[in-house]
Amino acid sequence: MAKDMELTKVTIKDAFWTTMQQLVTDVVIPFQERVLNDEVEGVEKSHAIDNFRIAAGLKEGEFYGMVFQDSDVAKWLEGVAYALVIKPDAQLEARADAMIEIVAAAQQEDGYLNTYFTIKEPEHRWQNLLECHELYCAGHMMEAAVAYYEATGKDRLLQVMERMAEHIIARFGEEEGKVAGIPGHQEIEIGLMRMYHATGKEAYKKMARYFLEERGKNPAFFEEEAAKRDWKHFGMIPEDTKYNQSHARVYEQEEAVGHSVRAVYMYTAMADLADADKDKALYDACKRLWDNMIQKKMYITGGIGATHIGESFSVAYELPNDTVYAETCASIGLVFFAKQLLKTEKKGVYADVMERALYNGIISGMQRDGKRFFYVNPLEVNPGTSGVAAGYEHVVPERPGWYTCACCPPNLVRMVT
Amino acid sequence: MAKDMELTKVTIKDAFWTTMQQLVTDVVIPFQERVLNDEVEGVEKSHAIDNFRIAAGLKEGEFYGMVFQDSDVAKWLEGVAYALVIKPDAQLEARADAMIEIVAAAQQEDGYLNTYFTIKEPEHRWQNLLECHELYCAGHMMEAAVAYYEATGKDRLLQVMERMAEHIIARFGEEEGKVAGIPGHQEIEIGLMRMYHATGKEAYKKMARYFLEERGKNPAFFEEEAAKRDWKHFGMIPEDTKYNQSHARVYEQEEAVGHSVRAVYMYTAMADLADADKDKALYDACKRLWDNMIQKKMYITGGIGATHIGESFSVAYELPNDTVYAETCASIGLVFFAKQLLKTEKKGVYADVMERALYNGIISGMQRDGKRFFYVNPLEVNPGTSGVAAGYEHVVPERPGWYTCACCPPNLVRMVT
Repeated sequence: MAKDMELTKVTIKDAFWTTMQQLVTDVVIPFQERVLNDEVEGVEKSHAIDNFRIAAGLKEGEFYGMVFQDSDVAKWLEGVAYALVIKPDAQLEARADAMIEIVAAAQQEDGYLNTYFTIKEPEHRWQNLLECHELYCAGHMMEAAVAYYEATGKDRLLQVMERMAEHIIARFGEEEGKVAGIPGHQEIEIGLMRMYHATGKEAYKKMARYFLEERGKNPAFFEEEAAKRDWKHFGMIPEDTKYNQSHARVYEQEEAVGHSVRAVYMYTAMADLADADKDKALYDACKRLWDNMIQKKMYITGGIGATHIGESFSVAYELPNDTVYAETCASIGLVFFAKQLLKTEKKGVYADVMERALYNGIISGMQRDGKRFFYVNPLEVNPGTSGVAAGYEHVVPERPGWYTCACCPPNLVRMVT
Repeated sequence: MAKDMELTKVTIKDAFWTTMQQLVTDVVIPFQERVLNDEVEGVEKSHAIDNFRIAAGLKEGEFYGMVFQDSDVAKWLEGVAYALVIKPDAQLEARADAMIEIVAAAQQEDGYLNTYFTIKEPEHRWQNLLECHELYCAGHMMEAAVAYYEATGKDRLLQVMERMAEHIIARFGEEEGKVAGIPGHQEIEIGLMRMYHATGKEAYKKMARYFLEERGKNPAFFEEEAAKRDWKHFGMIPEDTKYNQSHARVYEQEEAVGHSVRAVYMYTAMADLADADKDKALYDACKRLWDNMIQKKMYITGGIGATHIGESFSVAYELPNDTVYAETCASIGLVFFAKQLLKTEKKGVYADVMERALYNGIISGMQRDGKRFFYVNPLEVNPGTSGVAAGYEHVVPERPGWYTCACCPPNLVRMVT
């Protein structure tokens, strides 16, 4: 079914990348496993696995972390799947299997899976798509499920996520009895497409299309959603539709705007769907966005998302070296997008950009010892200013060990492996 | 009494500055008078004079504008005073006299003068020194009163401000029955010192010293003040003591930090008081702050306050050209500070910095037609980015006609004249 090269049939033998992969399999994955289990001193507490244990009733306690903390476990599991292909490791696989059992145990009877809402605010499920990342976390766990299935042949997590997919499909859509919805942070679209490729089930692809097509149909969606509830999470501005690319239908978007990770995750799913359905209009939209991004909004390093204000694309050609954002995750998403476009069109530009980002804006996110990570990838660091002065607080001059918002380190793992 | 050169005995005959002064007397002052009277179409509404009329009971209506809107009238009156010396104008003087009568009529029985609180929140007087600029507005009106007295010999406004000074002296201080207080935006210290020089009354100098010495004695002052009331105005953070230089006693401050206009207004009063009292410790503090600012935090244009975040000084040597703030008012304050230091010590560096700022970072704030003004003085403007991109919104590429927060245009008037 999958048109991608089969994971288990690829072996990389390259002085540079083999070393890098070994660093990830031997150092980063075990290190991050200890971080996720709160076993590393001196780094930001994760609590991500405990959240699943508590949601599953296997442990007493409170939820801790970001509303999207679950996705750290998903990204790690996805990385483990690839690592097991590179370097089989029965003990690691056993630990991953055990972790998957904990995830499975945290799933609710109706298929719902999200530890934040299960533990903390069960009454608020699905009420705040703008801020609360339920679909985002689901998308990442779907990716992990597919990767783990493809790497090991084990479908335990895939079954869990099929149940979650059914839960989502039953809730959102245009049919009678369903409600309209789009994710505040795109990613579910990628997850559903990967589930489609792995299982061949059209319903997943159809749901991915729904989320992509529904986006921007009603630019006031998040405003209307916010008006329906009397609570908020981060305090995001629902009127800022460009931030999450809900300002226009995907077919009509000409310029890469808003939060760069949200953008490239969406473009990736668009390109995948366009390829799967031979949808020329959708592919043309991808190409326009690609051209705009690559020609006007990408650093020489393959970094994208120039400003920390909204972690967003700036205006054309505005690519400052010192106030730069260029989040690691954004460049990773750029590679995903390029890879999807390359499936449809075998053009050198896609591989060139992938290469540029891989060698520069992505691996710059990890220290050579595999234990410290950059979220922001500055092209210029000035001691005494970077990380200190107003407007530069985000440009930390050295890689910290972990982050409160720890999206980038595990994303790096899954990318490199 | 005053050691400054007497205003009326100075005539400037210089091709450049005479032209500039003529521009101000002939164009800017009449233009700003019309703005203050809301007679100019297409610029931000001022309402500043109407506020006084309403507070005086001469007109029906609501307060409109910033909480410190009164200071625009004060700065304009001060500019008029200097203009009348340069170029006597009976009609202008008559209009200024009439405006002073309106100001006088707005004064309350107890000497209090502030249109915002008189019209809008009389029950909240003096409760929010952090945000509400009552002392700041009083300081500017004191400066206007002294200038107008020195220029015209008329003491009507001076008498009004003497009554306001008595009101302030009766309220704030260490004596029995008085309360502790420091301004959230320094300026009253300058006003009181000028009143002292004009009248010889020691009480005004003593009050200026109180405000300067009290500052930083209790760095939690604004926090405690905020805890006592159940309302806020702008939502400023009382814990951010560096912003308004209340983090340490003035004698202990080594580095120019925080909001740059607040800082240089405070330094100006410190230098004036140090000179008046031959206070070496205070003068040494001025010199340390001067050296830090001039050597590490000043643009080549004499601009200071590098970042729009808090309109503040950045860290040493961080002077970006494109995200620059360098507010016109800050460079004007820098000249005031230099002028005070020059009184005590006849060193070229003070005059050099004054010249640098006057010719560059200050007059850049006004278009050559005298009708458009820069608040921010960028050293680099990029079409499509400046004024548009995230982090650059404050760097407007062209001078607007007026501002909601219109501190700079009238400040320019009083500086150039």
